[in-house]
Amino acid sequence: MGGADQGINPLTGQSVGAPVPHTDSAGVAAATTAARAAAPAWAALTPPRRADILDAVAAAIEAARADLVPLADAETALGEARLTGELTRTRVQWEMFAAALREGSHLDVVIDPADPDALPAPRPDLRRMMVPLGPVAVYAASNFPFAFSVPGGDTVSALAAGCPVVVKAHPAHPGVSARVAEVIAGALRDAGAPDGVFSVVYGFEAGRVLVTDPAITAAAFTGSIAGGRALFDLAAGRPDPIPFYGELGSLNPTVVTAAAIAARGDELVRGFVGSMTLGAGQFCTKPGLLFLPAGHGLDERLAAAVGAATVGPLLDERIAAGYLRATDGLAEVPGVRPVAVGDAVDAAGWHVPVRLYAVSAADVTANADAALHECFGPAGLIVEYADDADLLAALGAVPGALTATVHAEPDDALVPTLLDFMAARAGRVIWGGWPTGVAVTWAMQHGGPWPATTSPLHTSVGVTAIRRFLRPVVYQGVPDALLPPALRDANPWSLPRRVNGEMTA
Amino acid sequence: MGGADQGINPLTGQSVGAPVPHTDSAGVAAATTAARAAAPAWAALTPPRRADILDAVAAAIEAARADLVPLADAETALGEARLTGELTRTRVQWEMFAAALREGSHLDVVIDPADPDALPAPRPDLRRMMVPLGPVAVYAASNFPFAFSVPGGDTVSALAAGCPVVVKAHPAHPGVSARVAEVIAGALRDAGAPDGVFSVVYGFEAGRVLVTDPAITAAAFTGSIAGGRALFDLAAGRPDPIPFYGELGSLNPTVVTAAAIAARGDELVRGFVGSMTLGAGQFCTKPGLLFLPAGHGLDERLAAAVGAATVGPLLDERIAAGYLRATDGLAEVPGVRPVAVGDAVDAAGWHVPVRLYAVSAADVTANADAALHECFGPAGLIVEYADDADLLAALGAVPGALTATVHAEPDDALVPTLLDFMAARAGRVIWGGWPTGVAVTWAMQHGGPWPATTSPLHTSVGVTAIRRFLRPVVYQGVPDALLPPALRDANPWSLPRRVNGEMTA
Repeated sequence: MGGADQGINPLTGQSVGAPVPHTDSAGVAAATTAARAAAPAWAALTPPRRADILDAVAAAIEAARADLVPLADAETALGEARLTGELTRTRVQWEMFAAALREGSHLDVVIDPADPDALPAPRPDLRRMMVPLGPVAVYAASNFPFAFSVPGGDTVSALAAGCPVVVKAHPAHPGVSARVAEVIAGALRDAGAPDGVFSVVYGFEAGRVLVTDPAITAAAFTGSIAGGRALFDLAAGRPDPIPFYGELGSLNPTVVTAAAIAARGDELVRGFVGSMTLGAGQFCTKPGLLFLPAGHGLDERLAAAVGAATVGPLLDERIAAGYLRATDGLAEVPGVRPVAVGDAVDAAGWHVPVRLYAVSAADVTANADAALHECFGPAGLIVEYADDADLLAALGAVPGALTATVHAEPDDALVPTLLDFMAARAGRVIWGGWPTGVAVTWAMQHGGPWPATTSPLHTSVGVTAIRRFLRPVVYQGVPDALLPPALRDANPWSLPRRVNGEMTA
Repeated sequence: MGGADQGINPLTGQSVGAPVPHTDSAGVAAATTAARAAAPAWAALTPPRRADILDAVAAAIEAARADLVPLADAETALGEARLTGELTRTRVQWEMFAAALREGSHLDVVIDPADPDALPAPRPDLRRMMVPLGPVAVYAASNFPFAFSVPGGDTVSALAAGCPVVVKAHPAHPGVSARVAEVIAGALRDAGAPDGVFSVVYGFEAGRVLVTDPAITAAAFTGSIAGGRALFDLAAGRPDPIPFYGELGSLNPTVVTAAAIAARGDELVRGFVGSMTLGAGQFCTKPGLLFLPAGHGLDERLAAAVGAATVGPLLDERIAAGYLRATDGLAEVPGVRPVAVGDAVDAAGWHVPVRLYAVSAADVTANADAALHECFGPAGLIVEYADDADLLAALGAVPGALTATVHAEPDDALVPTLLDFMAARAGRVIWGGWPTGVAVTWAMQHGGPWPATTSPLHTSVGVTAIRRFLRPVVYQGVPDALLPPALRDANPWSLPRRVNGEMTA
């Protein structure tokens, strides 16, 4: 171990703030030991009490806004407007989980009273509820220094579930990570949360040690396929394998029909280039593949829109180098032609050119492995299809995705097939919109089949993200007074419950 | 590959029925290809239509009872009474999932209408539901030739979810596996299910090939820790890892307090020995660890109850050999003394002696790895505790379990602590009963932390077992007429739905 994370301003390549030392194995063990010690007390809080504490953290994050946004901007260059919005979203996530705890359906209470006449055998009294797994490791992402980092959705959903959290900070923004960690820890302490319920560790090696620590019962990760796969393999290879919720990579295929182009070609060009270059293309939901009918005639308009786009630098040197390597590789796939490919950028920091290519659907189908991988950054691949069969063959080669988008007219004959195709390959199917921007709601699903995630049953955004950290326990024949309050006959917490198979309010 | 599974009568060691040839890789590929081809049509059936088909299978299994029970008895020697009950339970499971499909809550529909005022940003219309994962591999268990085998809970819950199933049959009962496979396949065909939606493969190597087949999207397994871990590792090591739901091994700790012994010692002795020897101790929920206060004075009564127990042979030669090896190992753990240990059995077939040992809690804590592993068969270990601290230390060393049982008086001071301790380590907490016998209901949880299962969030028994094979998809901004019926405004399937955060009937 040893070493430190040093914040770098992506605009200039210059250091920002003091280095944050890497956590050694003793430091990781101290964090996980404290998390394990805190687990019973944190789990034992009533949901409304835990909700109050989450609200206190939300308020503390809000109160530190004037500190946090400039710190994050200096280390990420994502811009004040974007980071201001992201901080609001992050605060809202804490408030949303607090509200969900007060509603209580996350406990998923099910009561089957004893039934001497049940088939195949008389049934004892059975009462089931959800309980927290235990300490959770959270791996912060680079591209959302708030919403998918130290104070992000993985952290709050695990805390909401009743699990202590140890975050492994992302090395691209150590300064804001350390600052927001102080804010969260202080708010938790002031609100009466047990010591050790939240901590942050730093450094690559600390992250490897963390996922194999015996005290850790689950892990959540947002990042690259390579990084996520390495941690997933460590989690699965433990003597006691643990759930690993990784959100890895996604091409987010977007299909545009000829009728949609005829109806609103200019708008589609603007929307696509805007979504592809938003945040310098560093969204996990960036539309990386745009399926257009062959002969679409949009090349010039696409090139103009790319030329007009303002694109900031990438987040760090490693990501910038990876972007150039990945797009260079894409340019060499048979049949790929440039549509709008900028020259190497001669500025300081981690600026890169937008790179938009095109290729035929037949060539994608023939070279799927080379053509169909994510280029993290402001790059896209247009796939030109000759007919419906050609389109569906290429779409069928696209790996699992977080999102899949259709731009069509409702009476396009292919639409029902397309929507089914998309639903079979992605966690979110979008009609007439763009995938960047993920609403934080009950219904949201931010996940999908491999490699979009390691666990297609779950989401990392929205209320149901809490389900990743809860497991069912059923009590059989336990006297009412000895049951957890959630399961008692009197329903003292006024929870929604399923009794004898029927939902009750 | 090559070779065949040969049924053997455990009472005699003699062959029963014709050998069933192992499936070669081409046969496995044919099954998975057919399953993949069947997946869209099976997924597209309305839930009530799929329910009708499950009911038809239930009726066909019932109609074949007179065939199936004797076949299973010849290959397992579990006895006609037990197998008759197990067949009823198995039929009831098909009917239960059919009823659950008609109710529709498995689709978990959530609708967030568009909201221009939502924080942190205006919200599009979002509608989420569950969709099937795709073809599922099911690994049959030895110990329940119906309920956890070809027609068992894994098969029916995956089919109910809308997933085609390829079962890998257990080699200990190939004849009844092949016969019930014909019954199921015939009923599915007659009821109009798509070809390929269900098939069975045979042989160890076929099982290995199956879990790595690209068409397979999830696997469910019931069996040993070693076998389950090997398949789990293959599933996790795929280029595209898939969910692996393994139910592996469980010690099912049972704690008895001094007050409970004082109140009903004889009843406890009878109950424990009955549960430990039920089905020759070959239940995954067998109480393998009995915690008694030191000086309990029950040795003679325990030995008498063991002597009076009628215990059939084990299921096959490998299990019988493993039982003798495991119990021999247990006898050598420091401090272990015999309580009721029969001599080697000199009968034909796979008869083994009951073996009940005792050891101090302190010795268990000191030798946890050697003392705390499952002995599949009619064996148990009594753990004698000096005081509460001694008890909790030894309990804390017990690995994750399917069940944990408390026999106490409600006013025992330790009871609340004990129940919390049990809930932290098991999926089912039982008061005053015995863990063998698993009710098939909404509330049942048959699962637990590693090594009880590979996936503590899930159950393999009860209605919610269906959740293992469903993943969420959210539709964003899709016009009503293009949505799946479950998500349309008019709610044509009358589903329970969460709208704007509130449950609706």
